[in-house]
Amino acid sequence: MLSEAAHGVFTIACTPFLPDGALDHASVASMTEFYLQRGATGLTLLGVMGEAPKLTQAESLEVVRGVAEVVAGAVPIVVGVSAPGFAAMAELAAGAMQAGAAGVMVAPPSSLRTDSQILDYYGNVARMLGDTPFVLQDFPLVTGVQIAPDVLLKIFAAHPTCVMLKHEDWPGLDKISALRRASDRGARRVSILCGNGGQFLPEELARGADGAMTGFAFPEMMAGVVAAHQAGDRARAQDIFDAYLPLVRYEAQPGRGLAIRKHILALRGAIKHADLRAPGAGLNPDAIAEVAFLIDRQERRLAELGL
Amino acid sequence: MLSEAAHGVFTIACTPFLPDGALDHASVASMTEFYLQRGATGLTLLGVMGEAPKLTQAESLEVVRGVAEVVAGAVPIVVGVSAPGFAAMAELAAGAMQAGAAGVMVAPPSSLRTDSQILDYYGNVARMLGDTPFVLQDFPLVTGVQIAPDVLLKIFAAHPTCVMLKHEDWPGLDKISALRRASDRGARRVSILCGNGGQFLPEELARGADGAMTGFAFPEMMAGVVAAHQAGDRARAQDIFDAYLPLVRYEAQPGRGLAIRKHILALRGAIKHADLRAPGAGLNPDAIAEVAFLIDRQERRLAELGL
Amino acid sequence: MLSEAAHGVFTIACTPFLPDGALDHASVASMTEFYLQRGATGLTLLGVMGEAPKLTQAESLEVVRGVAEVVAGAVPIVVGVSAPGFAAMAELAAGAMQAGAAGVMVAPPSSLRTDSQILDYYGNVARMLGDTPFVLQDFPLVTGVQIAPDVLLKIFAAHPTCVMLKHEDWPGLDKISALRRASDRGARRVSILCGNGGQFLPEELARGADGAMTGFAFPEMMAGVVAAHQAGDRARAQDIFDAYLPLVRYEAQPGRGLAIRKHILALRGAIKHADLRAPGAGLNPDAIAEVAFLIDRQERRLAELGL
Amino acid sequence: MLSEAAHGVFTIACTPFLPDGALDHASVASMTEFYLQRGATGLTLLGVMGEAPKLTQAESLEVVRGVAEVVAGAVPIVVGVSAPGFAAMAELAAGAMQAGAAGVMVAPPSSLRTDSQILDYYGNVARMLGDTPFVLQDFPLVTGVQIAPDVLLKIFAAHPTCVMLKHEDWPGLDKISALRRASDRGARRVSILCGNGGQFLPEELARGADGAMTGFAFPEMMAGVVAAHQAGDRARAQDIFDAYLPLVRYEAQPGRGLAIRKHILALRGAIKHADLRAPGAGLNPDAIAEVAFLIDRQERRLAELGL
Repeated sequence: MLSEAAHGVFTIACTPFLPDGALDHASVASMTEFYLQRGATGLTLLGVMGEAPKLTQAESLEVVRGVAEVVAGAVPIVVGVSAPGFAAMAELAAGAMQAGAAGVMVAPPSSLRTDSQILDYYGNVARMLGDTPFVLQDFPLVTGVQIAPDVLLKIFAAHPTCVMLKHEDWPGLDKISALRRASDRGARRVSILCGNGGQFLPEELARGADGAMTGFAFPEMMAGVVAAHQAGDRARAQDIFDAYLPLVRYEAQPGRGLAIRKHILALRGAIKHADLRAPGAGLNPDAIAEVAFLIDRQERRLAELGL
Repeated sequence: MLSEAAHGVFTIACTPFLPDGALDHASVASMTEFYLQRGATGLTLLGVMGEAPKLTQAESLEVVRGVAEVVAGAVPIVVGVSAPGFAAMAELAAGAMQAGAAGVMVAPPSSLRTDSQILDYYGNVARMLGDTPFVLQDFPLVTGVQIAPDVLLKIFAAHPTCVMLKHEDWPGLDKISALRRASDRGARRVSILCGNGGQFLPEELARGADGAMTGFAFPEMMAGVVAAHQAGDRARAQDIFDAYLPLVRYEAQPGRGLAIRKHILALRGAIKHADLRAPGAGLNPDAIAEVAFLIDRQERRLAELGL
Repeated sequence: MLSEAAHGVFTIACTPFLPDGALDHASVASMTEFYLQRGATGLTLLGVMGEAPKLTQAESLEVVRGVAEVVAGAVPIVVGVSAPGFAAMAELAAGAMQAGAAGVMVAPPSSLRTDSQILDYYGNVARMLGDTPFVLQDFPLVTGVQIAPDVLLKIFAAHPTCVMLKHEDWPGLDKISALRRASDRGARRVSILCGNGGQFLPEELARGADGAMTGFAFPEMMAGVVAAHQAGDRARAQDIFDAYLPLVRYEAQPGRGLAIRKHILALRGAIKHADLRAPGAGLNPDAIAEVAFLIDRQERRLAELGL
Repeated sequence: MLSEAAHGVFTIACTPFLPDGALDHASVASMTEFYLQRGATGLTLLGVMGEAPKLTQAESLEVVRGVAEVVAGAVPIVVGVSAPGFAAMAELAAGAMQAGAAGVMVAPPSSLRTDSQILDYYGNVARMLGDTPFVLQDFPLVTGVQIAPDVLLKIFAAHPTCVMLKHEDWPGLDKISALRRASDRGARRVSILCGNGGQFLPEELARGADGAMTGFAFPEMMAGVVAAHQAGDRARAQDIFDAYLPLVRYEAQPGRGLAIRKHILALRGAIKHADLRAPGAGLNPDAIAEVAFLIDRQERRLAELGL
C-alpha cells in the first residue's frame, strides 16, 4: 500500500495503442519493463493528462492489470481515478485496487474555488475511498484550482489516507518550502512528488520534495537527479539535469508533449507505435527532425560528462 | 430515426435517484410517462448538464433502456454521448442506439477555438458515428466554444447525419435568424430546438426555431407556447410564457437549477425523490418556501388566464 | 459619505455617447435627472460591466463631475475604480472623491483564487484607499472569483471602510441569508445591494438585502419592489416585479444587454442616442421589434394592475 | 517606421520603479543603454505581460519618452497599446508615436473566439490606427484567443500596416512553418519575432522566424543565437542557447518570472531596484540563492564554450 514514505521516481506511464486505435497490450508490458529498468520506484497510470479520458472503463482496468502483471509487486502502482461523480470514482478505485494498485490519485474538479469547497471535496473523497490511500494531485495550470498551503495541511491533518501530494503547481517552489517548514514545526508530513515534466526537479528536491512523478521519455534523468541529490551532490544533480534539459523543454510544449513523448518512447523501443488515439495527431517531419537533432546532442553531452 | 423534421418539445429528462444514490428505476418510468402526458414530442437523455457525468457507463444504458421501454417508439429519444475520446463516444452511441435511441447529441470539447478546429472535430464525429443521426449541441456558456453561423452551415452541408442544432447560445436570437435566412437562400435546413431553460422560447420560435429542448419542470409551458406559436397566436404564446416566467427564472439559477427542477418534479409526482447524486446538494427550507410561493402564484395566474 | 446604512435603489448609470463616439454631456445630465425622478436613492458610475473600460481617465472623471453637478448632493454617488494596479486605482479614487463621489467600488481581479489571496487583496485595497468608504463587488460570473461568506465576514470585520457588498453572485440567495444570520449573531452588518439586472430582487430582499444596485432601464421597477417590500407587502412586490420580468429577462441577454438598455433609455428620452462606443454594436430591427412588443405588453399589464 | 523587414532582437523592456513605487527615470535610461549594448535591434515597451497595466496613462508616455531619448532613433521602438476600448487605444497610440515610437502592438481581447470575430477586430484596429504600423501579438496562453494561420494570412493580406507578428503561441512551431510556406507560395510576408521568454528560439529561427521579441534578462543570449543562426551555424546557436537554458527555464515560471527578471537586471546593474509595483512581490532568499547558483554555473559554462 502506498504510504507517506514513498519517494524516488514514479514514472507516469503513457497508454500505448496499435495503429488502428486498439490497446497495444504487448507494448503495455514492454513499456513497464522499460520504466522499471530505468529506475522507476513506482508507476502512475491514467493521469489527468494523457489519454486516460479516451479509454473506456473496461480498457482502463485492462491497462492496470497489464502493468500490474509485469510489475509483480516490485514497485507501487498509483491509478488516476478523477471523475465528475463519486459513483464512477468509487467504481474505478475499487477496480484499480483489485487489479493491483497500491493507491489512487484524485485531482480537484475545475469548479472548486474557495478554501471550504476544496476542504469539503477532499473530505468526501476520503470518506468515499475508505481505506484506500490516495494522492492529491495539485495541478492548477490544468484544473484551474489553486490550493493554498494551509488548506493542503488541513487536508493532510484530517485524512490519514491522503499520503502523497503530486505537486504540479508551476513550479510552486515556495509551496514545497511552506509545507516542509510546517512539518518541521509538527504538521503531518506526506510524500511530495513533483510533476511538470521534470522542468524544475533540482530546485524541487532542494526545497524538500521526495522525488518526481512525471513521464519525461528519459526516466533515467529523473532517477539520476534524485540519486545525486540524495548523495548530496547538487552540482552533479544539476549537470545531469542540464544535459537533458533541451529535450525536457521540447517535450513540455503544451498540446504537443504527448506526441513527442510517445515518439521518443517508440524510438527507444519502449512501445511499438507512437500513435495517439483519436482525437490526437502524431509528429510531422519537422518535429521528428528537431527531436533527432536534440537526442544526438544529448548523447554527446552525456558522453562528455561521462554519464 | 431522428431527422431534420423534428419539432415540438424534446424534454430533457433528469436522472432520478433513490436517497441512497442508486438509480431509481421506478421513477425513470413514471417520469417518462409524466413527460409524455405533458406534450413531449421527444425526450433527451444524458445531456451535458445534469448528472450524466455521474453515471457509470452501465447505468447510462440502463437509463436509456428504462425510458425506451415506456416510450415504446411513441416519440424519438436523443442520447447525449459527448466524451473526451472517440472510443468512449462510439461505444456509448452504439449502446444507446441499440437500447432504443433515435439519435445522439454531441457538444464540442472546450479545447476547440478556431473555425477549422471545430470543422475538423465534427468531421471526425460524423465519420465515427456512421449512419447514426446526431444533434450538434451549441452551448457556449458551458463549453466555452463559440460556433459562428457560417461554420454551422458548413457542418450541416458536409454531414447529412447532422440533423439538428440544439441551440443554447445565450440566447443567440440573431444566430437563429442567420441560419434561417441562409436556408431561405438554399442552404440545408436542419431542425433547431432551443435550450436555456426555455427563457427565450417565444423569441426563439419567432426567429425560426422548431421548438424547445429543455427540462423546465413544467413541460406543459413549452408545449403550450409552441402550440400557440404554430397557431399563429403570438400574444397567447407570450401570455402562457409570462405566467410561468417567474419560475422559469428561478430554476435558471446557475448551480441550483437541477436541485430546484428535481424538487418540483418530486412535488408533482413525476419522480419519487428529489435527491441529487453526490456531489450535489438538495434545497434548503428557504428555497423550498420560495418555490412554493411561486408555484402558488403561478397556479392563480394560469387560472386567471383560463389555462 | 457612503455608509453601512445605504439602502434603496442605486441605479447603475450607463455612459451616453454621441453618434461620433464622443461623450454626450447633455445626456449625462438628462439621464441623471431621469434616474432621480424614478426613485434612485443613489447612483453608481463606471461599473465593471458597461463601457467604463472604454473611457480614458480624463473622460471617467468628466462623467463623475457631470453626474455630481446634477445630483448636487441629493443622493450618494459610487464610482467603480477597479484597476490592475493600485497606482491607477488610487489616482482614480482620489479624482472621483474630489469630483463628488461618496464612495468607490472595487471588484476582485480575476487572478484571485484562494481565501488568503482574497483577504490580502482587500487588505491592500483598504490600506490604499485610506478613509474612502468602499463597496466590495462580488460578481463571480464575470470575475471568476468566488468569495465564501466567512471570507466576506472577515473582510467586513477587518476593514470598517468596507461599508457595502454589491451582491451579484448569481443569485447567491443563500449567501445573503448566511451573512444576515452572522450579523444576527453579532458580526458587523454592512449594506447589501443586489445586481444581476434585478432578476432575483424579490427573493434577495426577502433574504435580507437592503435594496438593488443595477441598471435595468425601468428603474421604477426596483423602486416599486423595494417600497412594497419595506411596506411588508410581498405579493405586491412580486406583482410589480412580474409585470416587468419579461423585459428584465430580455435585457439580461449576455453580450446584448447594454445595447438593449441604451435603446430603451433612448426611447424613454433619458439619453439622446443609443450608440455604444466601439467596439460594440447597436440593436438590429428584429431586436428593436421584440423590445417594442414587450414594452407594449408591459404597459398594458401595469395598467391592469393599476400601476 | 516599423516595417516587414524588422528582424534581430527586440528586447521587451521592464518598467523600473523606485522602492516607494514611483517611476525610476534614471533606471529607464540605464536599462535602455544596457539593452542597446547587448545587441537589441529594437525595443518593446508596455507589453501585455509585465507592469504596463499598473501605469497611469501619463506614466506610460513618460516611459516611452524616457526610452526614446536614449535610443535617439538608433533602433525602432514598439509600444503595446492593447486596451478594452478603441478610444483609449487610439489615444495611447497617438501619444506613443508622438513620443518617438516606430509602431504599436495590439493583442486580441480575450472575448474573441470565432475567425470572423478576430478578422473584424483587427479590421477595426487597422482602420482606427490609420497609417501607424502595428504588430499583432498572438499569445493564446495569456489571451485565450487562438488565431489559425489562415486567419493571420487574411489579416496580413487585408491590412498593409500590420507589419509584424509577435509569435507567442506556445511554441507554435508549426504555425511559423505554415506562414512561411504560404509566403513561399506568394502570400504577403511579414516579420515574425518570437516571445515565450526565448524558450524555443533555435527551433523558431529554423522554422523561419526573423528573430526574438522577449525580455530574458541576458539579452546577449538572443543576440548570440540569432547571429549564429544567420551565420548558418546551427550547432553554435544551440550551444549558446543551451548554456543559458537553465536560467531561461527558471525565469519562465508563471507568476514569478517578472520578479526573477528584475532581480537579475538589478544584479547586472541595468536597473537600480528590483521592486515591482504593488500588487506584486519580490524574490525571497530561497529564490535569490537559486538564481545565484544558476548564474554561477552559467558563467562557467559560457567560459568553457569560449563565449
